[in-house]
Amino acid sequence: MQHIFFPKHPPRILAAASAVGYEEARGPFGASFDFHDETDLFGGDTWEHAEENLGHTVLNLLLSKAGLRPSEVALLFAGDLQNQCMASSEGLYAEKIPFCGIYGACSTVGEGLLLASLALAADERLPNAAVLTTSHHCVAERLFRTPLEYGGQRPPTAQWTATAGGGFLLTHDRGEVAVTAGMPGVMLDAGVKDGANMGAAMAPAALLSLTAFFEKTGEAPRDYDAIVTGDLGYAGSEILCDLAKRKGLDIASVHLDCGGMMYDKRKQDVHAGGSGCGCSAALLAAHFLPALREGKLRRILFLPTGALMNPDSLKQGGDIIGIAPLLRLEGIR
Amino acid sequence: MQHIFFPKHPPRILAAASAVGYEEARGPFGASFDFHDETDLFGGDTWEHAEENLGHTVLNLLLSKAGLRPSEVALLFAGDLQNQCMASSEGLYAEKIPFCGIYGACSTVGEGLLLASLALAADERLPNAAVLTTSHHCVAERLFRTPLEYGGQRPPTAQWTATAGGGFLLTHDRGEVAVTAGMPGVMLDAGVKDGANMGAAMAPAALLSLTAFFEKTGEAPRDYDAIVTGDLGYAGSEILCDLAKRKGLDIASVHLDCGGMMYDKRKQDVHAGGSGCGCSAALLAAHFLPALREGKLRRILFLPTGALMNPDSLKQGGDIIGIAPLLRLEGIR
Repeated sequence: MQHIFFPKHPPRILAAASAVGYEEARGPFGASFDFHDETDLFGGDTWEHAEENLGHTVLNLLLSKAGLRPSEVALLFAGDLQNQCMASSEGLYAEKIPFCGIYGACSTVGEGLLLASLALAADERLPNAAVLTTSHHCVAERLFRTPLEYGGQRPPTAQWTATAGGGFLLTHDRGEVAVTAGMPGVMLDAGVKDGANMGAAMAPAALLSLTAFFEKTGEAPRDYDAIVTGDLGYAGSEILCDLAKRKGLDIASVHLDCGGMMYDKRKQDVHAGGSGCGCSAALLAAHFLPALREGKLRRILFLPTGALMNPDSLKQGGDIIGIAPLLRLEGIR
Repeated sequence: MQHIFFPKHPPRILAAASAVGYEEARGPFGASFDFHDETDLFGGDTWEHAEENLGHTVLNLLLSKAGLRPSEVALLFAGDLQNQCMASSEGLYAEKIPFCGIYGACSTVGEGLLLASLALAADERLPNAAVLTTSHHCVAERLFRTPLEYGGQRPPTAQWTATAGGGFLLTHDRGEVAVTAGMPGVMLDAGVKDGANMGAAMAPAALLSLTAFFEKTGEAPRDYDAIVTGDLGYAGSEILCDLAKRKGLDIASVHLDCGGMMYDKRKQDVHAGGSGCGCSAALLAAHFLPALREGKLRRILFLPTGALMNPDSLKQGGDIIGIAPLLRLEGIR
């Protein structure tokens, strides 16, 4: 059973920033993101450099919103999908912010928010801690599936890695959204080997985190305005709600999924919906946090889901391993 | 300037475990490691699976030494050099321990010890936190340089990724070594682009951490029995001591480097010495912690160094970015 952290003095999210690419800017939340680039290149000369620049853009937007110079940020947790998390190190080293690289696939932002909260809870002298995650569609297709130039066919269960990034600045007591509970994920092997069906691989891990959290807290889905998963997509969301129902947990009425929200299902041909480290991070920054700040939502569970895999691990017979860290976020009015 | 964490109740390292491969078992500390495999395969059918099994072996040794069942470990920080940190997720998922994936290249164990300490400092109800890192020579050569089968020539500055892993179990108050200070690293680009000269890329980052730590604490190298860097190797260690001297910091008499210690320079043909997430982790577990427990050392600085890079980032013109998180470890007598 996962240990749940209930911080005595819940850390606050002071500022958040987001940036997205062409396709994401045309989705239902396109107008909410702080920045978008029509070329998807963000001034870079390769897709990998584009993602680094995307992260760098998010960091600068975040610093500007928080009113901080880079030297005033005490600790930065960042991660992405590139091999050896290079988008984060190449994109964010110039600011010389003390850095911890993290990897949780598409759940990385959840791990980052948990660790930033723990760092603040551990040391009242730590002024702040930041979290930043990115993903880029063209990088991920080349890395995990086939380069876009091949024009490969995608099955209906395949998700669309979002070109997106989200950043967050947490402090002890400034900001209108508090992290009132956090729980690390447990790695779960659901036996799925299909990299084009990651929702199925991650849904059981999300259910595991939800049931552990509700069991331990005595709370129920009705205690929340929304239960927000990250990047199960259309297929994975259906699986999660089905599996939950079989366990006697009816979440369908409050469940939202960032992968399902990022694009317009009818108008945008993204198959099973969005995914990527930046998908849930950008929607948390651009949609859910403002809703919590404004009182449109009071209390949500945010559990981004990650599919731990790479092409070599699948070729060597490995399964896709799911994980879902969980955060309870509450508006302070 | 990096923030230094000084935990009010310094976490203790209750247990540590290590496992290594063929070459490491023949080095000067070969007899100190808990386990070695003459085949380097650890029962695996590929090198990647071998590394997963190596990690799994270290975890089981650690649990056994700590007298814990897997379900009693509250949080595990783990990372490795494989793409998407697959050695950690595939190797460690079966135990269902709440998991945070971390990436700091060869400095990963330092990041892990820092984060495990912060997690314990953040929550007195958290019973423990574990850290585990691995590397495998044959995986790393194929991934970062050329497959061993090519028989490629290595320049004298090239380091030898160790087939090794180390694991640590931290608690609030049990164990004879305490983590009395911790500091995250800052990413530093020293302009090095040569993946066969990583010591040169990492030495300036180690110096940055050392000078920041000494400046902030008012301490000096003479206050320590050893200043232990991870994996600068022979070349990088010389660079660090030279650079430090120019800054008026004479560390040569107390400086040790895990990359320089792992192999016998005269008898083993490993060029510039060891490296890899498992190199400093295994030596910390097998040599430095016992020395602190037994009073042979009282107080050390442990700063593993990481080279943030991958073959694609170098091909696209990127530099190797260095980082060096720092821990102060003290024996409790």
